[in-house]
Amino acid sequence: MEIKKISIAEKMSQFSDYWNPRIVGELNGQHIKLVKAKGEFEWHKHDNEDEMFLVIKGEFNMELRNKRIPITEGEFIIIPKGIEHRPVVKNEVEIMLFEPATTISTGGNEKSELTQKRTEWI
Amino acid sequence: MEIKKISIAEKMSQFSDYWNPRIVGELNGQHIKLVKAKGEFEWHKHDNEDEMFLVIKGEFNMELRNKRIPITEGEFIIIPKGIEHRPVVKNEVEIMLFEPATTISTGGNEKSELTQKRTEWI
Repeated sequence: MEIKKISIAEKMSQFSDYWNPRIVGELNGQHIKLVKAKGEFEWHKHDNEDEMFLVIKGEFNMELRNKRIPITEGEFIIIPKGIEHRPVVKNEVEIMLFEPATTISTGGNEKSELTQKRTEWI
Repeated sequence: MEIKKISIAEKMSQFSDYWNPRIVGELNGQHIKLVKAKGEFEWHKHDNEDEMFLVIKGEFNMELRNKRIPITEGEFIIIPKGIEHRPVVKNEVEIMLFEPATTISTGGNEKSELTQKRTEWI
């Protein structure tokens, strides 16, 4: 595979839908994904995967069962496996995600409409 | 461990030396590191680890044996395992690194002065 740099802004310009992460890189079995989001996601957890959220543009609240953490541009948070969480987004936010290639966004809840059927590379 | 957000700028403000990555997060056996750099690093490769460089501030050139790739703020590059590379930095740059917790910056060249003895968490 050719080695080339990736522009986050250029990749972000390729889509506009919410809660639909795109894969933009892979290393050591981990995927780098970009997602745009607005509104409330659903409560979920990942039994086997830690997940990192890095805010590229805008801000959002990461809700845990016992607190709410506001996260803005240039900040990130790591949600350890097994911890219930729910992103809540007032205005559109752009986020970079780091997670194992096996991760399903809703934590494996196949009945959810928010579960992507197959994550797309861009 | 308490779950809390991390500010990249706040962590960057805690150190000023070059080529000395600090660990700021861990997930799925991967470390998130921040590094400041200026000047030329040395040619090296990592036999078993892919490595990601995300530019937070400034710009640098990633030299490969057959090309030179300029990388600026908001861009990243993934160097697959086994590929020789050398970062060359004209003016100070701030970079976020993603790599397995096992990675040694110089690719395991213990004789290099650039090899950190032990990577510090901040």
